[in-house]
Amino acid sequence: MSKIIFRQLFDAESSTYTYLLGSNKEAILIDPVFEQADRDLKLVNELGLQLKYAINTHCHADHVTSTGLIKSRLPHVKSMIAKVSGAKADIHLLEGDKIHVGDLEFKCIATPGHTNGCMCFYLEKEGVLFTGDAILIRGCGRTDFQQGDSGRLYDGVWQKIFTLPEETIIYPAHDYKGNTSSTVGEEKKLNPRFTKSKQEFIDFMKNLGLAYPKKIDVSLPANLECGIDYKPQ
Amino acid sequence: MSKIIFRQLFDAESSTYTYLLGSNKEAILIDPVFEQADRDLKLVNELGLQLKYAINTHCHADHVTSTGLIKSRLPHVKSMIAKVSGAKADIHLLEGDKIHVGDLEFKCIATPGHTNGCMCFYLEKEGVLFTGDAILIRGCGRTDFQQGDSGRLYDGVWQKIFTLPEETIIYPAHDYKGNTSSTVGEEKKLNPRFTKSKQEFIDFMKNLGLAYPKKIDVSLPANLECGIDYKPQ
Repeated sequence: MSKIIFRQLFDAESSTYTYLLGSNKEAILIDPVFEQADRDLKLVNELGLQLKYAINTHCHADHVTSTGLIKSRLPHVKSMIAKVSGAKADIHLLEGDKIHVGDLEFKCIATPGHTNGCMCFYLEKEGVLFTGDAILIRGCGRTDFQQGDSGRLYDGVWQKIFTLPEETIIYPAHDYKGNTSSTVGEEKKLNPRFTKSKQEFIDFMKNLGLAYPKKIDVSLPANLECGIDYKPQ
Repeated sequence: MSKIIFRQLFDAESSTYTYLLGSNKEAILIDPVFEQADRDLKLVNELGLQLKYAINTHCHADHVTSTGLIKSRLPHVKSMIAKVSGAKADIHLLEGDKIHVGDLEFKCIATPGHTNGCMCFYLEKEGVLFTGDAILIRGCGRTDFQQGDSGRLYDGVWQKIFTLPEETIIYPAHDYKGNTSSTVGEEKKLNPRFTKSKQEFIDFMKNLGLAYPKKIDVSLPANLECGIDYKPQ
């Protein structure tokens, strides 16, 4: 990604990765976290960038987005999320939409299953894919909340993601073990979930026995409103 | 860094970044952490790489290196550290030494001051610099232990690092705020410590008032022996 500004940023509390990309003075933040808005906006400013978009890969259940907070400070910034998520945003995205930031072109790939409104954002020229929770490194997002559907997730990943060039770099929305990136080829071969058969995957996801997400009752309602008017307790 | 395998890995306990680089089936681990040896060696194996070197930017005070543990499992791996560090290793590095891993060539740049044996490793062709604790993102390593010398650190950074191309990507040994990388140009302009005058920097570092490093009494003796025979308490 030469001549492109790229920064991966980590929120330790929710193990969320936020991505800042800049080109020709314009910038986009992917999956920004409420508590990290100061850090992220300071960096945008220090790098001489003008923030154009703040975008979410889906309506998160484990942290509140900072898109609303960012818009209250920088009213020109447009928020974006998949239309089918049902969440408020300035721009609602559909499968196949293109997002332009400087010379960068992100292609929107719908990969529902973790939630019904999950989208991956693909920089085809640069060979980089932001996968949200659809594919995590050697894992994937849970499918037992928010219209989750493990069969849809499995099909979408195999049909739309694992058909991309194997060297495509994957940047996920989370990691809990200190990994920061992977590749399409690697996950296709090594992801212990997606390398199962579809039925095995569905059974596996059904029996994960995960605890109720601790922040979901706060995060979901706030994120459905784009984080606008969210006040931390 | 096309066609090169590059992975940044994080240890949340010590906020340490470990770097895995691979080229032509050969690999090197920079600053590997004892508790993460299983994760790191599994990844090396999954990526089809043969680990050639395990290297430390300096003798760490905040975590135990996994070089000894790795060598006990993979006896062909050679450990490396700066000779002046006084720490045990298979290969002792001097200023200007070159390390070859596949097509990669790392140049050793001595930047003493955090410790007397700190080295940066520079991939000139790829424009990437591993800075250890000499330069952190908007900060630097403390200089009040292990023959620390803030004047030497300041001079080394300005003479040897800030003279590299501004677009050189900096990967540090730690970050405590979720940042993962920076550039030479950015730190030269924005690092609040190195943008001071030398005397201001020396005074600032003298008055940091940091607590005694909680792991130093365990880490330092272990790391001076390359982590060999270290048994966690």
